[in-house]
Amino acid sequence: MLAFLLTGSCSTVPRSSFVACSRRGPRRAPVTAVRAEPRPARLQRVQAVAAPPAQHESELALDFHTKCFKKESIHLAGRTEYIVRGGRDVFRALPAAFAGVRTVGVVGWGSQGPAQAQNLRDSFADAGVDAKVVVGLRKGSRSMEAARAAGFTEADGTLREQNEVIREADLLLLLISDAAMAESFEEIQAAMKPGATLGLSHGFLLGHLDSIGAKFRPDISVILVAPKGMGPSVRRLYVQGKEKNGAGINCSFAVHQDVDGRATDLAIGWAVAIGAPFAFQTTLRNEYRSDIFGERGILLGAVHGIVESLFRRYRDQGVSDEQAFIRACESITGPISQKISKRGILAVYEDLNEEDRRIFADAYAASYMPAFDILLECYEDVESGNEIKSVIQAVRRHTRIPMGKIDTTHMWDVGKRVRAKRGSIPIDAFTAGVYIATMMAQIDVLLEKGHVLSEIINESVIESVDSLNPYMHARGVSYMVDNCSTTARLGARKWAPRFDYILMQQSYVKIDGKEGGLTAADRAHFDTFLKHPIHGAIVECAKLRPSVDISLTGSGSADAARAGMFE
Amino acid sequence: MLAFLLTGSCSTVPRSSFVACSRRGPRRAPVTAVRAEPRPARLQRVQAVAAPPAQHESELALDFHTKCFKKESIHLAGRTEYIVRGGRDVFRALPAAFAGVRTVGVVGWGSQGPAQAQNLRDSFADAGVDAKVVVGLRKGSRSMEAARAAGFTEADGTLREQNEVIREADLLLLLISDAAMAESFEEIQAAMKPGATLGLSHGFLLGHLDSIGAKFRPDISVILVAPKGMGPSVRRLYVQGKEKNGAGINCSFAVHQDVDGRATDLAIGWAVAIGAPFAFQTTLRNEYRSDIFGERGILLGAVHGIVESLFRRYRDQGVSDEQAFIRACESITGPISQKISKRGILAVYEDLNEEDRRIFADAYAASYMPAFDILLECYEDVESGNEIKSVIQAVRRHTRIPMGKIDTTHMWDVGKRVRAKRGSIPIDAFTAGVYIATMMAQIDVLLEKGHVLSEIINESVIESVDSLNPYMHARGVSYMVDNCSTTARLGARKWAPRFDYILMQQSYVKIDGKEGGLTAADRAHFDTFLKHPIHGAIVECAKLRPSVDISLTGSGSADAARAGMFE
Repeated sequence: MLAFLLTGSCSTVPRSSFVACSRRGPRRAPVTAVRAEPRPARLQRVQAVAAPPAQHESELALDFHTKCFKKESIHLAGRTEYIVRGGRDVFRALPAAFAGVRTVGVVGWGSQGPAQAQNLRDSFADAGVDAKVVVGLRKGSRSMEAARAAGFTEADGTLREQNEVIREADLLLLLISDAAMAESFEEIQAAMKPGATLGLSHGFLLGHLDSIGAKFRPDISVILVAPKGMGPSVRRLYVQGKEKNGAGINCSFAVHQDVDGRATDLAIGWAVAIGAPFAFQTTLRNEYRSDIFGERGILLGAVHGIVESLFRRYRDQGVSDEQAFIRACESITGPISQKISKRGILAVYEDLNEEDRRIFADAYAASYMPAFDILLECYEDVESGNEIKSVIQAVRRHTRIPMGKIDTTHMWDVGKRVRAKRGSIPIDAFTAGVYIATMMAQIDVLLEKGHVLSEIINESVIESVDSLNPYMHARGVSYMVDNCSTTARLGARKWAPRFDYILMQQSYVKIDGKEGGLTAADRAHFDTFLKHPIHGAIVECAKLRPSVDISLTGSGSADAARAGMFE
Repeated sequence: MLAFLLTGSCSTVPRSSFVACSRRGPRRAPVTAVRAEPRPARLQRVQAVAAPPAQHESELALDFHTKCFKKESIHLAGRTEYIVRGGRDVFRALPAAFAGVRTVGVVGWGSQGPAQAQNLRDSFADAGVDAKVVVGLRKGSRSMEAARAAGFTEADGTLREQNEVIREADLLLLLISDAAMAESFEEIQAAMKPGATLGLSHGFLLGHLDSIGAKFRPDISVILVAPKGMGPSVRRLYVQGKEKNGAGINCSFAVHQDVDGRATDLAIGWAVAIGAPFAFQTTLRNEYRSDIFGERGILLGAVHGIVESLFRRYRDQGVSDEQAFIRACESITGPISQKISKRGILAVYEDLNEEDRRIFADAYAASYMPAFDILLECYEDVESGNEIKSVIQAVRRHTRIPMGKIDTTHMWDVGKRVRAKRGSIPIDAFTAGVYIATMMAQIDVLLEKGHVLSEIINESVIESVDSLNPYMHARGVSYMVDNCSTTARLGARKWAPRFDYILMQQSYVKIDGKEGGLTAADRAHFDTFLKHPIHGAIVECAKLRPSVDISLTGSGSADAARAGMFE
């Protein structure tokens, strides 16, 4: 997860993702029980282009059985997906879900650790769950004081040495950084009790184990709850939820190993106890794939590459630096994102005048396949373990060669000037066509690879337009890249230039009439866009967003958040 | 291997590498027997910067025992390396080297296949080797006619069905494309005779096996002979060698498995029989690593990224398109390469006037670490198997999404105009500083990773300035990228933009006084350059170049060469 929260002061640089849209009031989606249906027409068409046999975990297998909670079905783009709604009225199910768990150990005090530890503790008290939340830190950790301030103390045994907590936890929430996870996991897993449950908030560790051919111990359960927002918002909305039922950060959950048949209820219970208004199912593998891929794609890497290439293009056409920046960058992070957030992707096109529609359509048609090409390569590099191995190698190199900044070049100086005297920003039709083609290509790659629509829409649309783009709009794309998690930052640095080059080499030359110009196949991509089933699914998903404004306040600084990640 | 031969008509697009410099007459290096010495000071310094423990195959272990040939030692930058000289007077050792080999099967009729099959056949006849060279092709292969034209016929049993040849060969030379190798190797290896020898001309297959955790059958020998030039030149120089002893393409050789103690002599015999004037030792692993890395680096990917970023920089400074192209690109592929080829790397700097020396030094100082950063990442992605896995994944995608061209953009249109009215081209000091810093960074990465100097100098300097850059000078950098082997082409597309971005984000901004400007550490890199031990080693290596001009004529077209690669 990468993700940011747009705050009043813009000083919060969060660790994880999907700050759901808060502009809407509470709505309940009409819940209908529908049988699983075949994939939508669009997806079948994409696969018909000689796609290799799917190696992924099929979304059709995603169903679950819960003894303690109420499973509901939602209907998205012709598919049925299952969710559980949370909320304080559901807390009564927590004692049964956590039955047999005496100690929940929380290891790691970065972004998610403080939030989840406090939420669990408070929920257990409210719901009468007979389990203790114990924070585990290394001796001498800089975070001891912060944990004490949050009410975890050595005196009452809720703040203890990390290894003790690992050994004694019935449910061990491992919330340390990706790199630390890869480094120390063998040791941690060896110390766990037989029959204990390992809880993760990111599937990265499985990706690492996949890439080195290792496995989880067979005698422990392994579950995931991935809040679709950074830790501070997980805590803040939970606190708001005490006053206003329904506030909270949505989560995906997954059961990877279940040694005693209780893992599903424990995972859902965990999600509910940290305040999820609703939880949807995924797998560890699909979670890390969509997450790592998404931040290399439209969430961060692609948007950087797109704005670099567009800024250069507009300048080459004789546009001033400032106007080029407004058209290339401000247009995306401002009005395009706002419109998608409020009225969906298609509205960006439909609201254009005739001439701009033509420009949008050409830009879309020329950019879809180049973007799809790079995105598919990126997904397969994540899927194969390459991308995770590269991250781990890079982190080892960073002790020797620190990662450099990207916020150094002329373009970002122009950006600072532009933001300082910002006026009204029009939607640039060409920019919109390129950007939305890339977003749609990402959706299509994830569809093809078998992700559930809840995940696809979060990782490709909502996180982008409700969370990341608004943050970039306030602080700059380059600032955001430079202040993300290491995994996201490395990915953006690697993939942004690929999007830049392929747009320059394949998309823009076609639009300019070189290389044979636009083909019928290119134009067909635009026609597909107009009737893509994702548009309706996004509307359905929007109804499940939480009911309070989570973008009002922030806490912590970029540096603090970054330091926290490496706790 | 990638590599090109600069031909009169410039129509040859070769498959493999290192067309050694031909401007020199035959010279013999003073051969001295020296004990292995510690690494040169420079190398120790680089490693002192907290490099991780070396995971590579140490060059210190590289020594060999030959019963049939004369091993000689050469002294390069404080190290001793061992070579064997070939030439027609050494053919008398071939019968002993090939003793027990009755059938040499050559599978694959691309770039290396035709050359090696013909050279071996002719050498066996000359030297009285009692072995038959049999070409194996699939039924209905388009190459049947070409093989017949080269004198291999069904009638005399020297042209047979591929699977028969695989089953019966005592020495099987597998000269098919990288992707085909990965695809079909399990089947091929299963069909080989126990005790047979598998011969490769590229270590890629081992890289693939490493990446999927597979191994060669333990009951076969596995050897490598990698000619440092494309197939057509291997044949052409061999033919010249019949008149002028000493003509031929140098080779590296390696013994990976030796089931009967004969593998080393067989490998050296193979090198001598195809015409190598001298052969130096490597390992399969180091061969593929340096080769795949080198083409992503200064040989192809880095040079593309460098010229893109410089062209943009010069234009942004107000320089005309044509002048920007001349300074960014023509300067490298023309006079800088020529000077390095004739007088070594240091001469480029030493021949500059005082002001240009200062410009060179700044550009070098600011560019060395950014280039080293990307190159080290690239090497470790090759070393870890990531890069090979990506190539195999990409080739699978190509049936669905063909690889696009890069020769489409404005810059290359300018290049065509510039080449059409070419005058004298000055050395641009800034360009030279950036380019040579990247070349030196590549040398340092390879030193650190334990490659032998013969290999380092070939893969970082000689192949670049004698073979690839002259080809690019004639046809354009982009044309060369678009017409390389798939492995090289994919690598260049992936890594060029990384060099471009990091130079733009880290090097040029420092030179322009932003981000604190140049540091003492940056300047220290330039001081190290001035006294780097590689300069002397390059002079020694130059003495081992063959004695005829191999750059005079060419045959085949780009398309033919490309098609051949996928035989």
